[in-house]
Amino acid sequence: MATTTSRFTQEEARFLKELGQQLRVDSIRCSTAAGSGHPTSSMSAADLIAVLLTRHLLYDWHSPKEPANDHLIYSKGHASPLCYAMFKAAGVITDEELMTFRKFGSRLQGHPTPILPWVDVATGSLAQGMPIGVGVAMAGKYLDRLPYHVWTLCGDSELAEGSIWEGLDKAALHSLSNFTVIADVNRLGQRGETEFGWNIEVYRRRAEAFGVHAIVIDGHDVEQIDAALDRARASTDGPTMILARTIKGKGFSEIENLNGWHGKALPEDMAKRAIEELGGQRELTVTTLKPEPGKPAAMEVSGLVKLPVYQLGQKVATRKAYGDALLALGNHERVVAMDAEVSNSTFADEFGKKYPDRFFEMYIAEEMLVSAAVGMSVRGYIPFASTFAAFFSRAYDFIRMAGISQANIRLVGSHAGVEIGQDGPSQMALEDLAALRAVHGSIVLYPSDATSAAKLTGLMADTQGIVYLRTTRGAYPVLYGPDEVFTVGGSKVLRRSAQDRVTLIGAGVTVHNCLTAAGQLAANGIAARVIDLYSIKPVDVSTLREACDDTQGLFVVVEDHYPEGGIAAAVLEALAEDAQRPRVAHCAVRSLPGSGTPVELMAAAGISADHIVAAARKLLHEADNTKIEG
Amino acid sequence: MATTTSRFTQEEARFLKELGQQLRVDSIRCSTAAGSGHPTSSMSAADLIAVLLTRHLLYDWHSPKEPANDHLIYSKGHASPLCYAMFKAAGVITDEELMTFRKFGSRLQGHPTPILPWVDVATGSLAQGMPIGVGVAMAGKYLDRLPYHVWTLCGDSELAEGSIWEGLDKAALHSLSNFTVIADVNRLGQRGETEFGWNIEVYRRRAEAFGVHAIVIDGHDVEQIDAALDRARASTDGPTMILARTIKGKGFSEIENLNGWHGKALPEDMAKRAIEELGGQRELTVTTLKPEPGKPAAMEVSGLVKLPVYQLGQKVATRKAYGDALLALGNHERVVAMDAEVSNSTFADEFGKKYPDRFFEMYIAEEMLVSAAVGMSVRGYIPFASTFAAFFSRAYDFIRMAGISQANIRLVGSHAGVEIGQDGPSQMALEDLAALRAVHGSIVLYPSDATSAAKLTGLMADTQGIVYLRTTRGAYPVLYGPDEVFTVGGSKVLRRSAQDRVTLIGAGVTVHNCLTAAGQLAANGIAARVIDLYSIKPVDVSTLREACDDTQGLFVVVEDHYPEGGIAAAVLEALAEDAQRPRVAHCAVRSLPGSGTPVELMAAAGISADHIVAAARKLLHEADNTKIEG
Repeated sequence: MATTTSRFTQEEARFLKELGQQLRVDSIRCSTAAGSGHPTSSMSAADLIAVLLTRHLLYDWHSPKEPANDHLIYSKGHASPLCYAMFKAAGVITDEELMTFRKFGSRLQGHPTPILPWVDVATGSLAQGMPIGVGVAMAGKYLDRLPYHVWTLCGDSELAEGSIWEGLDKAALHSLSNFTVIADVNRLGQRGETEFGWNIEVYRRRAEAFGVHAIVIDGHDVEQIDAALDRARASTDGPTMILARTIKGKGFSEIENLNGWHGKALPEDMAKRAIEELGGQRELTVTTLKPEPGKPAAMEVSGLVKLPVYQLGQKVATRKAYGDALLALGNHERVVAMDAEVSNSTFADEFGKKYPDRFFEMYIAEEMLVSAAVGMSVRGYIPFASTFAAFFSRAYDFIRMAGISQANIRLVGSHAGVEIGQDGPSQMALEDLAALRAVHGSIVLYPSDATSAAKLTGLMADTQGIVYLRTTRGAYPVLYGPDEVFTVGGSKVLRRSAQDRVTLIGAGVTVHNCLTAAGQLAANGIAARVIDLYSIKPVDVSTLREACDDTQGLFVVVEDHYPEGGIAAAVLEALAEDAQRPRVAHCAVRSLPGSGTPVELMAAAGISADHIVAAARKLLHEADNTKIEG
Repeated sequence: MATTTSRFTQEEARFLKELGQQLRVDSIRCSTAAGSGHPTSSMSAADLIAVLLTRHLLYDWHSPKEPANDHLIYSKGHASPLCYAMFKAAGVITDEELMTFRKFGSRLQGHPTPILPWVDVATGSLAQGMPIGVGVAMAGKYLDRLPYHVWTLCGDSELAEGSIWEGLDKAALHSLSNFTVIADVNRLGQRGETEFGWNIEVYRRRAEAFGVHAIVIDGHDVEQIDAALDRARASTDGPTMILARTIKGKGFSEIENLNGWHGKALPEDMAKRAIEELGGQRELTVTTLKPEPGKPAAMEVSGLVKLPVYQLGQKVATRKAYGDALLALGNHERVVAMDAEVSNSTFADEFGKKYPDRFFEMYIAEEMLVSAAVGMSVRGYIPFASTFAAFFSRAYDFIRMAGISQANIRLVGSHAGVEIGQDGPSQMALEDLAALRAVHGSIVLYPSDATSAAKLTGLMADTQGIVYLRTTRGAYPVLYGPDEVFTVGGSKVLRRSAQDRVTLIGAGVTVHNCLTAAGQLAANGIAARVIDLYSIKPVDVSTLREACDDTQGLFVVVEDHYPEGGIAAAVLEALAEDAQRPRVAHCAVRSLPGSGTPVELMAAAGISADHIVAAARKLLHEADNTKIEG
């Protein structure tokens, strides 16, 4: 930590120090007014932000969508007072708005979210902003091909999360010279000292072993900060991690470096003393440097998107149809794809081979897979991220947070359910529909055949939200002709007649079992309606309601999923308040599956055609015995 | 990779090499018979396992529960053919059983599960067995205080997962000399070369930076393997990572080190040639060294478990009652606890302060948090792992796999729902009930007051399974006296009369809102039943059914959770097939919340008492207009 020769005029140095104090004072003021928040975690990083904002961040505050803008992501989202104090210093929010921090209706929430135009993604679940920043930097280097820099501010506590190391690994693998982590090592976590306290050498060694330039500085020395940020920006051979030794609560001697002050607003009397010690309220404004305006590189497309076509009855796996359709989406100018080392199973490799510049192999790191998708969506790309459906559970927190970010990503999970057969339960997604349905703003699709899989994939490209597609391992007959139309929120009635006495509802592989069952029932004189409920969320309420009316409410719902929260729950929730509500027999995977053939496992789980027939018969029998309902 | 002086007699060396070939041959035989599986990933690690099994693993195969046994976890669970071939060589399964690999009904599933008595945990979702092994090693060092060693076999692909680095970090932090990772670096993943191929130096540098002894060897040189395993066992100052350069498909020249052979059984003709090249079938049996029998250290307890008692009407947060009850469980001789750096929020710190020897600070690393719990449950401890409810989503894949392991763990999530207030949506669990309900073998509890929280915490200790407790941030009145009984699958009817016209169902904080609403309805002459549905899974079907009968099926379900898959779904699923099914008005969090006070946010979400009253009135009005149902 040698002192450097002066990089500033005296006036410049004074301004930076004053700005740091202003950021501290404003962090205290807004959190004390709120009665909650994290002033001390903001005070430790104030000088880092003061120097970054004044001299390094290239950002047009009045044009946050300018493609050439740098990005600054607060991975330590709890430093929101600092973030918002920075917005005030940049002149984009007033002091009055700053003082609405954490109040109902304010844009200035407890942790930053993209409700604010200068915030790329919601943070607050630690160690997410940083790998998402890697995704943004990948977009900058490989897609936009613009020289913007991505800065992420991390706390030291979050360096214990594995996702940080997934992020650094990928930043180094891609030599992301446009990516910098600024680690605010203030030694203290929520409940005491962090794992390594101020033993910054540990972080330095780890960062370097992960292929990242590490620069250790005093995070309150504006000269050292400035030099480090200069070096980070100037790097041409990979990402940088600035490890800044800082003091929590810096600037207010009563609580500096003291445990017990995490996530606590200062009481008013303390706040008054703190502001006095920090030199009082200031109203400095920073004129941030603007980037040279730039245009993202255009993606080369060679025609219109032409989705693949399949022959009725032909046996094609929906995962294959996904791969074919994704390949066709190569002619969509915003579509990119990524996979977690299983692209030859998800069939994302078809796209990867034809469009290597737009395909990203993330290796087996699902948190980084989803982070990359979210990061690229920040730059307006439409990312299709694929892996086995079961393994999206590895990134569930990232998907949850993407929901809060209202991000625009596509997740495609193959090998769902017991249908996968021999590989056994570790590879079977059996809870993904419940988990993904419960994400805010999610859309959940589950096609039964190649035509619908391809068409839904095409539809996904231009459907905003967290769009999840569940595909099936095995090949099943094509059910739909090329002119069939599929919509988000739609369904298909595959069998219907005026004589229908029961409705069989499936999605994905169970649609085929429902069709077989309906045939068996028909052979015994029982007409059954069959619904392909390919859109699990939103669900087609009107078709369900009509079937409920037409078949006296008798539904058999069949799903290759555990019983809780999946397709049956979607059906029940949809009609829960209706006067006429379905009586639902539910075929689902109730015991822990093992290995076997798909047919054996579906039979063992009780979701085969025979089970559907038995459930329908039992339901009809019970209904006959129930003279009056309700 | 210098050659060492001979450590074996010629005969010993020959046996090890022969055993390695047998493991390869048997891996091929069983996977070819199955028509699927991962023979090449087994062949690369065969020599490592041959030497480990013959000379280093201390294990009584006929007493797998012997406390002094070493543990061997196949983190690369797809090397199951090797694992099962090893069981045959150890004499615990027959060749006949080996040939049932992946067949329906066989214990020898596609990936190992604890259906087999020699398997600690289910693997197959990569990079889980390794951090779970860290948990077992922590149990060995700090709880059992027995000298057993924990060996985990990893593939190189899985080293890209963040959870590996969380695991190594904690292994080093705790100086787990009893823990060894054997990395089978065979260069090839599922779809081509891994991120670093045979660039083993990268792994070595990273492991060392994480504080782990790294030993690089030729993974087919039995002398080097033996020396490395000796060094690992002899370590007294921390964990070891053996980085073994290996060849995928080793021993069968047609496919050695070739891409395109991951996860593929050899066709019969190739299998025949391979077995011939490998020297044919063998029936060697290994007499594994047994450990000195040992007894786990007894945990010191100083009396009976005496749960805390609260006064009716006293305002106490359920998270505080959890902390108090956990402290009382210090007198339960198997209870241990761990937290992800928020123990002063979850109140696990009460236990941590009194029982520092049984409390483990995992820092902010939720995958490792759950892995440690699973690992300690392998040794028969009853781990209570706590963090904010939202952050268990970070470990959802680990919880899913714990379900497949049929592990015995307790997860306690605090700060659920919009009720947390100012911190905003990143800190609000709003999808946890859906996600946790869908885990196989899970139990989901959500107490509304301190008495029930404490009693359920006490009950959890001796309730087998993945038991999840959701606690609330704010303090609410105690509703139950100290003699009240709570059960898994139970509920409480807080208001009832013969005049009840509608049933209000809540859990956790919404129970209080339901009570207020019932009071308001009563003031307007509408009697409402109120159910505290504290057991979300399993749910109290008979109480719900009775309420459905008594109140003409009119239910208002209120939950501080997104609408999908939570409490309403649990209620609807429970009664779905009944002749008399509820008509459910559903108050849940439908829009993305921001910051505000708990009262403001619950009102904005539509789950306040006023909303419940309005929903009940609307439901009654609609029901009056519906003359005949069903």
